[in-house]
Amino acid sequence: MGPIVTLLSDFGTTDSYVAEMKAAILAFVRNAMLVDVTHEVPPQDVDRARLLLERYWQRFPPGTVHLVVVDPGVGTARRALAVECGHARLVGPDNGVLSPALSHREARAVELLPSARASATFHGRDILAPAAAALALGTPLAQLGRPVASPRLVTTPVPTPRPGGAMDGIVLTFDRFGNAVTNLTAGDDTGERTVEVASRVVPLRRTYADVAPGEPLALVGSSGLVEIAVRDGNAAHRLGLEQGMPVRLR
Amino acid sequence: MGPIVTLLSDFGTTDSYVAEMKAAILAFVRNAMLVDVTHEVPPQDVDRARLLLERYWQRFPPGTVHLVVVDPGVGTARRALAVECGHARLVGPDNGVLSPALSHREARAVELLPSARASATFHGRDILAPAAAALALGTPLAQLGRPVASPRLVTTPVPTPRPGGAMDGIVLTFDRFGNAVTNLTAGDDTGERTVEVASRVVPLRRTYADVAPGEPLALVGSSGLVEIAVRDGNAAHRLGLEQGMPVRLR
Amino acid sequence: MGPIVTLLSDFGTTDSYVAEMKAAILAFVRNAMLVDVTHEVPPQDVDRARLLLERYWQRFPPGTVHLVVVDPGVGTARRALAVECGHARLVGPDNGVLSPALSHREARAVELLPSARASATFHGRDILAPAAAALALGTPLAQLGRPVASPRLVTTPVPTPRPGGAMDGIVLTFDRFGNAVTNLTAGDDTGERTVEVASRVVPLRRTYADVAPGEPLALVGSSGLVEIAVRDGNAAHRLGLEQGMPVRLR
Repeated sequence: MGPIVTLLSDFGTTDSYVAEMKAAILAFVRNAMLVDVTHEVPPQDVDRARLLLERYWQRFPPGTVHLVVVDPGVGTARRALAVECGHARLVGPDNGVLSPALSHREARAVELLPSARASATFHGRDILAPAAAALALGTPLAQLGRPVASPRLVTTPVPTPRPGGAMDGIVLTFDRFGNAVTNLTAGDDTGERTVEVASRVVPLRRTYADVAPGEPLALVGSSGLVEIAVRDGNAAHRLGLEQGMPVRLR
Repeated sequence: MGPIVTLLSDFGTTDSYVAEMKAAILAFVRNAMLVDVTHEVPPQDVDRARLLLERYWQRFPPGTVHLVVVDPGVGTARRALAVECGHARLVGPDNGVLSPALSHREARAVELLPSARASATFHGRDILAPAAAALALGTPLAQLGRPVASPRLVTTPVPTPRPGGAMDGIVLTFDRFGNAVTNLTAGDDTGERTVEVASRVVPLRRTYADVAPGEPLALVGSSGLVEIAVRDGNAAHRLGLEQGMPVRLR
Repeated sequence: MGPIVTLLSDFGTTDSYVAEMKAAILAFVRNAMLVDVTHEVPPQDVDRARLLLERYWQRFPPGTVHLVVVDPGVGTARRALAVECGHARLVGPDNGVLSPALSHREARAVELLPSARASATFHGRDILAPAAAALALGTPLAQLGRPVASPRLVTTPVPTPRPGGAMDGIVLTFDRFGNAVTNLTAGDDTGERTVEVASRVVPLRRTYADVAPGEPLALVGSSGLVEIAVRDGNAAHRLGLEQGMPVRLR
C-alpha cells in the first residue's frame, strides 16, 4: 500500500509534462498512489492554485504528500519549499501557493537544495517531484534542506464586520458551474438573510432547489463559504460577477 | 491489491471536487484503485451519464464499485442509491442514471441513509463517496440502507420494426469524434444494407477504410450499436445530425 | 506492487473509450498501476503522439509498458505491434508512432495476432490493451506474435549544419503554453547565440526570467531541445509560428 502523492499544476493535460513528473516520482517510489487534483489551473495563476489547495489538502489520509507546481518564477532565485504540517507534507515553490499549510502555527518549511542536474525550466520534474518522492518515502524534512524562517504567505482577505451584523466580503473565485465562491461564512441559520452583489439582492438559501430554476441564490457551499449561484444556470455569466467584486451578507 | 472504484461525474476537471471525493474514498479505503471514467459529462446531463455507464460498467473486474455523480436534484428529496447487480456494485442518485444496472432482473437497490454531517450541495463527497467506500470494503448492501422497491428507471428507446425488414431508431448520442451512436443493432452481415438519416442514404460498412476519406458511412461501433460516421471527419457537423433524430436501417 | 502501464491516445476524455481500455487491462492485470499520459492528442495526429512518446518513454521505471493508441488505420491491414527495447515494452499500431523505441538498434518488434473477437473499430480495447496486459504480466514478446523485420519508422528531421557554425532546423510542435519546440540542440553555452524564426532574431537565454515580461526568447527546454518562447506569453500566437517553420541557430 504505497504512499499517496497528489498533483496540482498549470501544465494542462495535452503535453507530457505531468507524465514526466509522475515518472520522476515513480522512479523513487515505485508503489506511489498518484492522485491528480487538476492540471488546468490557468497558466501561472498562483492564487487559484492556493484556493484549490485550501479545499483539499487536509481531506487526504495522514502521510499524504501534496505536490503543487504553479511556478511563474521557475529558473529565478525564488526558493522551492518542502513543508510539514500535522500529518501532511507539501512541496512547491515559495510564491505563496502553499500558504494554506504555511499559515498554520505548527507548519515547518525547508528550502530545497538546488540540483546541479536540474533543467532551468522544469523544476516540477527535476526538483519538486523528487522532493515529494523523498517525503513519500519517509525522509525527514530536515534532510531535504535548510529551515526557512519566513516563507511567502498569501492569505485570503478576511470579511469586514459592518454595523447591524452585516459582513462585507469579496468574490474569491469561480467553479466550473459558474458559482462564485466568496470569503464570507454563514452559520446554519439561513432564515432571513440576503447577499448583495453586483447591485442585486440575492436570498441565502440552504440548497438550489429552494429557488425556482433560473433564479439566483446564495448558499453555504461545500467548502463552508458562501457561494452565489443560479439554479440550473451560470451565476458568473448571468449576474455579471467578477473576481474581487464586493459582496455583503445581511 | 485494493478494490477498484470508478468515478463518473459532471464536475469537470478544473476544480477540486473530484479530488475531494477521492479523498473521501481513500479515508476509508486507503488502498483503493481509483479509475476516472470522465468528469466532463455536460452539467446535469443524466442521460449522457447513463449511456456512458451502460458502455463500461460490466467490463470491469468482479467487485468493482461504480460511483456516478450527475445529480441535478442534490439537496432535494431525491433518494441516493446503492445497487448490487451480479458482481458489480454502483452508487448514485435515484434519477435514472443507474438504469443500466437497475434494469437487470437480479439488481437490488437500497436507499442510502442521509448523514447529518452532509453538506446540502455536495452529496457526491459527503454521502455517495463514503457509500462507495463502504461497498468497496465489502460492507453488505443491506447495511447501507432500506430496500428500494421502485427505483427510477430510464431506458433507451427500442427500435421499431418496419415492413420489409427495416428498423426505425434514433440518434442517442455523439462521441468526441462526431460519430453518432444510434439505438440500432445490426448483425455481421453488412452486405447490402443502408442507413437513412437526415435525408441521406449512407452505406453500412465494416470499417472506416471501406469508404473514401470524407465519405459518410454507417458501421457497427465498439458498443455493438450502429454508428454514423464520416471517414477522417466529423459526422455530427458534416451531416447536420442531432440527438433524437430518426434513423432507418434497411 | 503492480506493473506500470502508461496510456497515450487521441480518444479524448469525454467518452468511455479510455475506461474501456483500462477495464480490458485490469481484467488481466488486476493490480496494474495505470498512468494516463494524455488522451488529448489531436484526432489521428500520429506525429504529435510520436513526439510526446519520445519525451517520456525512457523516464519510467524498468518494466513499464507503454500503450499508444493513435490509429487512423484501425480496421485496415495495418499491423499492430508489440515492441521490447531495453527495459521498456510498448504496444501500438505500426504507423510510425512507436519510432522513438523502434529506432534503437536493440529494439525487437512482433506483429500482434488478430483476434477473431475484436471489433472492427476499437483495436485499442480489443487487441492492443490485452497485449499490453500480457506484457505487463511478463509474457515473453515472442509469444505475442511473429517477428516484424521492418516496422514503419518515422524520424524527426535532423538539423542541417550551415557555414559559420549555424544550424538550420524546424519547429516540431507546440506545448500548451504556446512554446515552440524545435529540432535544434544547443550546449550550455547560451552566451551570444540567437535563433532566427519568422523574420525575427530572438536571443538564446538560460531561462524565462532572463528577458523582460512579454519579450521573446529561445531556451533549451526540458527535453534538451531549443524552444522559442515569450515570457509570460504565447509564442505561437505572438510570433505567428507554425509547425514545420524553418529556424536557424547562430
